[in-house]
Amino acid sequence: MKKKYIYFFGSGGAEGRADMKALLGGKGANIAEMTNLGIPVPPGFTISTEVCNEYFKNNKKYPDGLWDEIEKNLAGLEDAMGKNFGSNSQPLLVSVRSGARASMPGMMDTVLNLGLNKNTLKGIIEMTGNERFAYDAYRRFITMFSGVVLGIKKKKKMTENGHEVEINQFEVIMDEIKKKYNAELDTDLNVEALKQLVEKYKVLVKNETGKDFPEEPKEQLKMAVNAVFESWNNQRAITYRKLYGIPDNWGTAVNVQTMVFGNMGDTSGTGVAFTRNPATGEKKFYGEFLMNAQGEDVVAGIRTPQSIEKLKERMPEVYESLVEIYQKLENHYKDMQDIEFTIQDRKLYMLQTRTGKRTAAAAVRIAVEMVKEGLVDKKTAILRVEPEQLDQLLHPTVDPKAKVEVIARGLPASPGAGVGKVVFTAEAAQEMSSKGERVILVRQETSPEDIGGMNVAQGILTVRGGMTSHAAVVARGMGKCCVAGCKDVNIDEGKRLFKVNGNIIKEGEWITLDGSTGNIMTGKVKLIQPELSGNFAQIMKWADEIRKLRVRTNADTSHDAQVARDFGAEGIGLCRTEHMFFEGKRIDAVREMILSDTEKERRKALAKILPMQKGDFKEIFKVMDGYPVTIRLLDPPLHEFLPHTEEEIEALAKEMNVSVEKLKEKSNSLKEFNPMLGHRGCRLGITYPEIYEMQVQAVFEAACELAKKGKKIEPEIMIPLVGHINELKYTKERLIKVADEVMEKMEVNIKYMVGTMIELPRAAITADKIATEAEFFSFGTNDLTQTTFGLSRDDAGNFLPFYIENKILPKDPFVAIDQDGVGELIKMGVEKGRAARAGLKVGICGEHGGEPSSVEFCHKIGLDYVSCSPFRVPIARLAAAHAVLKEGKLEAISTTA
Amino acid sequence: MKKKYIYFFGSGGAEGRADMKALLGGKGANIAEMTNLGIPVPPGFTISTEVCNEYFKNNKKYPDGLWDEIEKNLAGLEDAMGKNFGSNSQPLLVSVRSGARASMPGMMDTVLNLGLNKNTLKGIIEMTGNERFAYDAYRRFITMFSGVVLGIKKKKKMTENGHEVEINQFEVIMDEIKKKYNAELDTDLNVEALKQLVEKYKVLVKNETGKDFPEEPKEQLKMAVNAVFESWNNQRAITYRKLYGIPDNWGTAVNVQTMVFGNMGDTSGTGVAFTRNPATGEKKFYGEFLMNAQGEDVVAGIRTPQSIEKLKERMPEVYESLVEIYQKLENHYKDMQDIEFTIQDRKLYMLQTRTGKRTAAAAVRIAVEMVKEGLVDKKTAILRVEPEQLDQLLHPTVDPKAKVEVIARGLPASPGAGVGKVVFTAEAAQEMSSKGERVILVRQETSPEDIGGMNVAQGILTVRGGMTSHAAVVARGMGKCCVAGCKDVNIDEGKRLFKVNGNIIKEGEWITLDGSTGNIMTGKVKLIQPELSGNFAQIMKWADEIRKLRVRTNADTSHDAQVARDFGAEGIGLCRTEHMFFEGKRIDAVREMILSDTEKERRKALAKILPMQKGDFKEIFKVMDGYPVTIRLLDPPLHEFLPHTEEEIEALAKEMNVSVEKLKEKSNSLKEFNPMLGHRGCRLGITYPEIYEMQVQAVFEAACELAKKGKKIEPEIMIPLVGHINELKYTKERLIKVADEVMEKMEVNIKYMVGTMIELPRAAITADKIATEAEFFSFGTNDLTQTTFGLSRDDAGNFLPFYIENKILPKDPFVAIDQDGVGELIKMGVEKGRAARAGLKVGICGEHGGEPSSVEFCHKIGLDYVSCSPFRVPIARLAAAHAVLKEGKLEAISTTA
Repeated sequence: MKKKYIYFFGSGGAEGRADMKALLGGKGANIAEMTNLGIPVPPGFTISTEVCNEYFKNNKKYPDGLWDEIEKNLAGLEDAMGKNFGSNSQPLLVSVRSGARASMPGMMDTVLNLGLNKNTLKGIIEMTGNERFAYDAYRRFITMFSGVVLGIKKKKKMTENGHEVEINQFEVIMDEIKKKYNAELDTDLNVEALKQLVEKYKVLVKNETGKDFPEEPKEQLKMAVNAVFESWNNQRAITYRKLYGIPDNWGTAVNVQTMVFGNMGDTSGTGVAFTRNPATGEKKFYGEFLMNAQGEDVVAGIRTPQSIEKLKERMPEVYESLVEIYQKLENHYKDMQDIEFTIQDRKLYMLQTRTGKRTAAAAVRIAVEMVKEGLVDKKTAILRVEPEQLDQLLHPTVDPKAKVEVIARGLPASPGAGVGKVVFTAEAAQEMSSKGERVILVRQETSPEDIGGMNVAQGILTVRGGMTSHAAVVARGMGKCCVAGCKDVNIDEGKRLFKVNGNIIKEGEWITLDGSTGNIMTGKVKLIQPELSGNFAQIMKWADEIRKLRVRTNADTSHDAQVARDFGAEGIGLCRTEHMFFEGKRIDAVREMILSDTEKERRKALAKILPMQKGDFKEIFKVMDGYPVTIRLLDPPLHEFLPHTEEEIEALAKEMNVSVEKLKEKSNSLKEFNPMLGHRGCRLGITYPEIYEMQVQAVFEAACELAKKGKKIEPEIMIPLVGHINELKYTKERLIKVADEVMEKMEVNIKYMVGTMIELPRAAITADKIATEAEFFSFGTNDLTQTTFGLSRDDAGNFLPFYIENKILPKDPFVAIDQDGVGELIKMGVEKGRAARAGLKVGICGEHGGEPSSVEFCHKIGLDYVSCSPFRVPIARLAAAHAVLKEGKLEAISTTA
Repeated sequence: MKKKYIYFFGSGGAEGRADMKALLGGKGANIAEMTNLGIPVPPGFTISTEVCNEYFKNNKKYPDGLWDEIEKNLAGLEDAMGKNFGSNSQPLLVSVRSGARASMPGMMDTVLNLGLNKNTLKGIIEMTGNERFAYDAYRRFITMFSGVVLGIKKKKKMTENGHEVEINQFEVIMDEIKKKYNAELDTDLNVEALKQLVEKYKVLVKNETGKDFPEEPKEQLKMAVNAVFESWNNQRAITYRKLYGIPDNWGTAVNVQTMVFGNMGDTSGTGVAFTRNPATGEKKFYGEFLMNAQGEDVVAGIRTPQSIEKLKERMPEVYESLVEIYQKLENHYKDMQDIEFTIQDRKLYMLQTRTGKRTAAAAVRIAVEMVKEGLVDKKTAILRVEPEQLDQLLHPTVDPKAKVEVIARGLPASPGAGVGKVVFTAEAAQEMSSKGERVILVRQETSPEDIGGMNVAQGILTVRGGMTSHAAVVARGMGKCCVAGCKDVNIDEGKRLFKVNGNIIKEGEWITLDGSTGNIMTGKVKLIQPELSGNFAQIMKWADEIRKLRVRTNADTSHDAQVARDFGAEGIGLCRTEHMFFEGKRIDAVREMILSDTEKERRKALAKILPMQKGDFKEIFKVMDGYPVTIRLLDPPLHEFLPHTEEEIEALAKEMNVSVEKLKEKSNSLKEFNPMLGHRGCRLGITYPEIYEMQVQAVFEAACELAKKGKKIEPEIMIPLVGHINELKYTKERLIKVADEVMEKMEVNIKYMVGTMIELPRAAITADKIATEAEFFSFGTNDLTQTTFGLSRDDAGNFLPFYIENKILPKDPFVAIDQDGVGELIKMGVEKGRAARAGLKVGICGEHGGEPSSVEFCHKIGLDYVSCSPFRVPIARLAAAHAVLKEGKLEAISTTA
């Protein structure tokens, strides 16, 4: 049987349906659906995406018999319309438009008014009695066809002052004619003028291509169809697909449709509308239209369209039909629709309907209200909100109405906006903040010592570092806005100012950062604060009812813990104790410990840190009363705690009362070629057991004291960087002893667990052995990704962007879990671990824990929880619900993807 | 049924057998075997190793009924000997000796002459008529029992000049008595003196322990058995087991055996002998004896024993029996035996027989000759030579007869010995070497830039760095001796000398290094050159007949390739092209390439390197005519090629005609936090494709030129550090194009393959995908170990030794493949790879390729080949044969191990 390549729509029915998007593209499928619904749509036919794919696969050859099939459909169209393609009596004009499965606005080509030539022009004039309209359509057709099909490009030209500019030669001619006829707008041109325009255009085409403008309508059609298919692989379409992850082999369909004209005079017009407000979600018809215009005029923005409500006044019957249709469409599709329509001489035609794009706020409101209206169920409502979108709702944002002066742009490293006075050091940030001032911390790059300053700042701006730099990672963890790697900024710390693109900003001056766009603005810009109750709370509640994964947070302070609780976190999945080592004066004791030569000296220094760590834990436990708290014992290599610059070293030596030489010697002895693979994690805990012992003592003293006051504390002690079961055994044995001693002394019994991070490939591979000792696993996917790929996150900047851009890696593995590689290891770890210890509690605590596709993966492989930074908690909750809902739809997804 | 704990031997038969070593220990099993063979052995019984294990498992409690069983066996012994334990008529004396499954010489305790007290002493005097002998035995017994059983330790004492020395109080008394009786040797003491000695000893025991010396023989026996079991866990035994990998749960047996006396006068004696020469392997009875002595006297070395041949003159009948027995034993055990015997009043008793330890040379000679004698088959002969042992035979060694002055000791980083004049720079090494001088290169530490100097040196001495430092790894690769990390050496480069432990060695002075011991010696020490023909060649030939694994070599130069061919390498498994980048003037072009900002500039610089690389490949291909050569394209990060010190940078800037600032900036931009996980391997090849293109061009131009001259070249192009199939795809596509172009231009067709290193966990996990593009796999186990463990080899020095010492890791994973972790990944990689591409060629090329247990693993999982440094090739060949032979014996091994 011959394959069917073309699908007809018109005469009250269509061969296609809305669910045939893969074959007919979004536009074609929806036009067919509307036709079947009895909605007035100009008839036509859709050439399927398969043709596009075969064309490119077979060295740009079309399937055999395609043109015969086109001719057959064209004949059907003529029949349906009672018009004739290429005839001077009742001529049929068509549009030729691309239409891919996913919307790719403006990326591919369109030709309107096709079928016009000297001969059919006469037929149009006769048919419409409107010569001016006919010539206007003709000149538009020639312009469009020449650009899209004949490939007449803009010309480069030198201006008088030596700049190169691009000149559209058709516009040049248009401007000449306008001048000649003293016309301001296109619409001011009379028939005579348009006739001249057409003649001049034809000469231009002849000059540019060496051939006459094609007269034969079927030749025009063939050329136009070919051009649209070709446009699937034009540079901007390729770039767009790369950007939005649209597969190259989806292809585009081509829609050939009878032309209807919004520009036939004052009883004609064209418009676009949304069935609800796409910005706020309000249930109110929303759109705009232009009288006496074609669709391109609305887009071009030369004339200002009117609000859709005005149409009610101008053409009440048309407006009424439109309202009836949009309601029918929304009820049919059960989602907010984005529609396009044309009015030709008081008759309404629908040209397109599709699911409308919307802001996060609108998505949430529409979803919740549609449930209330009985239009969709809760599950559908949940799926209507993209988890990643929620990020917009969780942070302050720049008021879109505010007037801003953008002075530079960096990387949008952590979302949200922040307003504050510029400071250049963490100390200054803390000092000014303690006086109630809001500050923005501006640094070359941040280091762990800046944590205190970052914590009090409204936002962070760095000159160096990328999306995964220290500043970016920490800021995201804190839910604080961060613009990173803004190389235009030039800090002069001595003069306490920074220069950027000709501006000078001094310490104490106000700036505003937008971490969602990377914009840096002068002054205090008005922000909009997030609203987390109402519809947002409703959709989260529904998500919670459905999801199976628990969602915990990564939090190192009671403040972060509280934020996360407010966002619905059900415990702490990762409390990094090393951040506590930097705060305030305790870094001195930490350094004293590191510089000690004997265990005795180290214990002395650790004894000073003990009460502070204990205090930290108490605060965190209080916030997490009743929820589990996973505490990771010290992880980073000791070298990170030592100062790095010459001056800092000298100052510390003085303070510690040791020689600069000794300090440097010690520092050098701790330096590592590959600190990521060095003396860290449990390797530290094994060689300096006194560090972990102090930490566990602090945890249990804090927990016991609170337990005595009736709090329910569930500490989960997590040993980092275990690669071999013996490392866990060795460490665990000693820690249990300390825990038991504390509990015995304080006469309280605390239920606790000892488990491990699985962050090395070897740990995942030998998870069956490790699970015999570990009471829980937490996959540290950051480090696991680094070791599995052999890829340092800090050093990947020189090649990872190239990899993503050239599709060598499909996604950044530090953003979304690499399911084929790292994911396989995780699966192996879970299976082996649970085989050895039934009911083993398993979670993940890398940054992936708040990324929707990774959350879905975690659900699929049966983890108990994900843990993510506080501001990602709602995203993870929603993503976890999506994961459950998508499970049933897996087959459907795999056939469309 | 009651468990049997004790095994009797005597009266012409024994309850044990030679194959019961696990239960009876080596000594007990062999004594039983000898008894069964009808060889004269003093009767006795063995308490099994199970008792030892139960004792320690059950909190130092012996199994119920053990002592009853001992008493029963003691009664049986009395019957067999017609003597009485503890009686004054015909008293029975016994020895109580440890005997573990593996020989642990001198590590555990022994008590002789047990059963003596005032009463039995009389019986001995009566029985022997030799009062002096009886008292001599008595004083020996008290000394031994006091030390071993009563735990009377040496005393610490201050000498006059303030030094602390250890004093054996029994020796102090002995010296007093000797003085008093004017005796020089023990044997000079008369009965009177010995009687006094005994009395004084007993007073000492009373003073030290607060109790009288135990008189009751059964009490003595109980205490002695207990002490021997306890000695299984004394510190030196624990250390020994750790050192030789003997499991703690093997336990020791205790042998209680009738005493026979070699010290009963001039018709008595004792001796040890080997059935063949253990140093050379010569088939000649070899040993020594002492008349009128107990075994301990031979060991103590106070009197000089005589050669065994003298016994023939002194006691021809005894000698004849001994010869008959040793031949019987060697024929029975079919291996060279190490025997102990005692002659009591002209009657010969055998006390022990066991497989004799031997040098590598002896092992080879004995194995080959025993095959010729028809004693063993070839397979047995092959298994008689330990692969690791061969290392002794492949390098020059210090003549054991040479007089040497050792001035310091470093780490034995690369085996063999070297003699040369001291130089301090690679340049000096090359210059002097070009004049025909032999040199030893002495450096703080080496870096890739020193390769040229290392290559011409006889040996390398470094102050810093461990067993896996650059110097150590490269030296092992070159088969050159290296003493690393000798911290006592203090180099003064300015004065061109080094100081070490008070010696000053100037440039140009002769020194000798022994890389097998770490010794540094002054002057030109005489060396013995390896002899690789004869028996060595014979055993290797047999091994080759049996092994299934192919053995290739890692070689970067034609010299190394030639050495490896001479050692039997069947191709190159890893030719690292980066080493070629450092040689001579080409490093300038490499740096020019790195400093270029555009591809065009880079290509210009690469064009200069091309002819040199091509030349290198030609030389290597010539040596490897007919064998495959795997060429790894550039792997290390570019930063490694730039200079590091301030002076070097300035010099280079001048040479390159760029500013110091630019050079530093470029260098800084290439610096990485974790270079191991950085911009290297195929990541370089992808971002700078011109580098790999140049390398492939060089390979194929070289191959084509030689192919035209009739050589058979099989290049295998290997892409390093592939983690994702797309990396391989991207690189391979470009390289094939270059290869095809060269072949077309040169009109030759070369059979070649493109494959990849599997050195990242992700590569192993996705091996099924990667194998669709890779035509071969080569496991880079060095990097795979680093990433799987998350362990930087360069940084592991601070904790890995602690890990090994404390058994947190059973073995250094950089020495022997970690089979549970890294090995699992390799297995997975092989299985997935072969599932996707039938017959995929798979090998390994890490340092593990020459380590016997790793070679065995590679055989088991079905690799095609291992590749190792040239000097490990014979070891790998033999280990590969062992792997085949052990396969059939797996069950036997698993029950004894």
